[in-house]
Amino acid sequence: MQRLHIGDEDFERKFTRIVNDRRESDETVAHDVREILRKMRQSGDDTLRDMTMRLDKHALSDDPATWRIDADQCRAAHDELAPETKEALQLAADRIRDYHEGQRPQDRDYRDAQNVRLGAKWLPVDAAGLYVPGGRAAYPSSLLMNAIPARVAGVERLVVATPTPRGEINDLVLAAAHVCGIEEIWRIGGAQAIGALAYGTETITPVDVITGPGNAWVAEAKRQLYGVVGIDMVAGPSEILVISDNKSNPDWLAADLLSQAEHDPASQSILITDDAQFGEMVEDALGVLLAQIKTQRTAHESWENHGVILVVDDLATQAPALADRLAAEHVELAVDDPEAIFAKIRHAGSVFLGRHTPEAVGDYVAGPNHVLPTGRRARFASGLSVLDFMKRTSFIELDEAALRTIGPAAAALAEIEGLPAHAASVKVRLK
Amino acid sequence: MQRLHIGDEDFERKFTRIVNDRRESDETVAHDVREILRKMRQSGDDTLRDMTMRLDKHALSDDPATWRIDADQCRAAHDELAPETKEALQLAADRIRDYHEGQRPQDRDYRDAQNVRLGAKWLPVDAAGLYVPGGRAAYPSSLLMNAIPARVAGVERLVVATPTPRGEINDLVLAAAHVCGIEEIWRIGGAQAIGALAYGTETITPVDVITGPGNAWVAEAKRQLYGVVGIDMVAGPSEILVISDNKSNPDWLAADLLSQAEHDPASQSILITDDAQFGEMVEDALGVLLAQIKTQRTAHESWENHGVILVVDDLATQAPALADRLAAEHVELAVDDPEAIFAKIRHAGSVFLGRHTPEAVGDYVAGPNHVLPTGRRARFASGLSVLDFMKRTSFIELDEAALRTIGPAAAALAEIEGLPAHAASVKVRLK
Repeated sequence: MQRLHIGDEDFERKFTRIVNDRRESDETVAHDVREILRKMRQSGDDTLRDMTMRLDKHALSDDPATWRIDADQCRAAHDELAPETKEALQLAADRIRDYHEGQRPQDRDYRDAQNVRLGAKWLPVDAAGLYVPGGRAAYPSSLLMNAIPARVAGVERLVVATPTPRGEINDLVLAAAHVCGIEEIWRIGGAQAIGALAYGTETITPVDVITGPGNAWVAEAKRQLYGVVGIDMVAGPSEILVISDNKSNPDWLAADLLSQAEHDPASQSILITDDAQFGEMVEDALGVLLAQIKTQRTAHESWENHGVILVVDDLATQAPALADRLAAEHVELAVDDPEAIFAKIRHAGSVFLGRHTPEAVGDYVAGPNHVLPTGRRARFASGLSVLDFMKRTSFIELDEAALRTIGPAAAALAEIEGLPAHAASVKVRLK
Repeated sequence: MQRLHIGDEDFERKFTRIVNDRRESDETVAHDVREILRKMRQSGDDTLRDMTMRLDKHALSDDPATWRIDADQCRAAHDELAPETKEALQLAADRIRDYHEGQRPQDRDYRDAQNVRLGAKWLPVDAAGLYVPGGRAAYPSSLLMNAIPARVAGVERLVVATPTPRGEINDLVLAAAHVCGIEEIWRIGGAQAIGALAYGTETITPVDVITGPGNAWVAEAKRQLYGVVGIDMVAGPSEILVISDNKSNPDWLAADLLSQAEHDPASQSILITDDAQFGEMVEDALGVLLAQIKTQRTAHESWENHGVILVVDDLATQAPALADRLAAEHVELAVDDPEAIFAKIRHAGSVFLGRHTPEAVGDYVAGPNHVLPTGRRARFASGLSVLDFMKRTSFIELDEAALRTIGPAAAALAEIEGLPAHAASVKVRLK
């Protein structure tokens, strides 16, 4: 963990290092992934069989049950849940759906003063693939956050790819799939699964958009396949920036900081406060909580290597600029007047206002998407939304009079650009 | 040029080959670009100097004028334009601005039934880089189409990168830059220019989003840097699909087909009609026009290698499904009732309705963006818009009562996901 004070002589150098700290995939991963994708293009099913056996110790045989999990299994997994878990999943699903329904875009269709008809029509993609990691990061909430926006967009075919190491299936993920009504689930993982979804194989029909979290290989495969399919975003380890005065409860903030640290050793938790002593109280509280949680090892590694407590002189005037340079995935404003600071922040994935809004409510039940830009991408990227599963077709309609009004300007520009056929296509109609 | 009939025995095989025809960059380009970007990360200015000398024969010296074109030069270039060119540029700029102003997204901010405050705030990115190719594809219209949406989004810093081979500057591009009020223009091109904009160099401050067309190296550099910055889209050669009955004027359609063919030898023009004889008339008209235009060589190569005339039995029932498989950048519906066919088309970049709407009006003056998804990407991607220069921050605010209502479900889900610090961050606040 790093302690910084904005007045430190080498503050700028140290803070810049934190800003530029790229906790992401390296060239080796990129090279491996290129090889895997090349193989997937050449022999999809065979490569899937080989790699799934080698990496997941799961045999994709002639028995379809080794390739797919069917809807009945999902329903059964859901039936087995404790009633309060069912209710919590349903509350989450309902609230996520409600929030995302407000994201549906409006079509446009109008005639302007020159009687040119102009517009834009939004439609869902035909098919979306959702990746769900196996092992540590197999989160049912993640399936809800990816599947529900696709459903709200109106996507007809929703496909899940998830590895089942040693044949083991995560029942919670199946139960969440049932809640989302997903019927096509493939037992494949890694870069090869992303390749299968993008290119298709003899067995698997390709999709148009791939979303969902994954390890470095999955993230790199999505990055390399961007353009072959649409993807949600290049995702890195998660991050939280807590901005707090000294009136917050240190125990609360300690839990908030650890809630990101426990995700991954590469996660990053940063506290900005205007009181050094308060910073120490949070650090102490964090140590106490850390000793009690079973994600201790991951959280400790993350906090030790990437945690930061940064003391400033004045929160309102200094914190927003620092927050913008970090452009963090999650920003908590644990102050009396969060609005005043929020108004000055330009770059953040999602902002949690006030002392009673722990980031974790956003992970599960608040409604907005928990798939958010990491690694400073909030400078230019947004959280997952209904729009990621839709595309817009613009349209134009002119009659002869409208073409006579605006066409000559088009022909003039085509001519100065040296494109005679463009010009001809207008002029031949105005003869 | 290929002639196809939907009734041909091997139609499906041939059409599939057309659909899968990837006229795009290969592995060699990808490898070269990785090398260039690696060098740009290590020594930006030196690499720019070396490559600009080698490829553009232009020396980036200690004289800033060799690096930048200033606003006065742009104004002067604009002053030199013929009055009708000035007017055409201004008409285009005004109409593009009007259309894009309708794309500004709405912020959200509301409280739901559980008194949870939820919302989303849209903001422009801080800086956008617009690439403008040198040589054949240096189009002032392209600068308008990239810069105006960024301006409408509210982007403060707009940067243009454009190569000036042998020091030669394209005055039309400068004039368009003046119309858009662009003040920062760098005389660099290729993958190295994209690297400079994304990573920054000693001389050039990095940007957040890079848009604009370019050759295979530029396109591949943008693809590889996606995630480091936002990009508009992976762009391939342009395409037009004309769907027409036999009542259109063959001369009109010939010009429309050639207007894409003249862009690039890799461009593709396809006519779908329900009358084989009409198809031949269009082919003949195309031959006549081809002989007259100075873009003959490019247009001829494109038409010979990639042109298609496809005859179907019934336009209304058969053309939309074929159009969806092609998911073309531009689709012209030259029929009496274009609306009926448009209603059945799901995948297209932009649609031109009726016989008096040549695609070229969309390239220049109609208003919608001419930067559109190519290479079948209309299945999942949209044309360039104001949203490409903005990003959305979601926000959440709970008070104690709201946290008491929805918090326990969040804690329950965190616990089943094995994330105790997430659960603790809720529970510690509800003690």
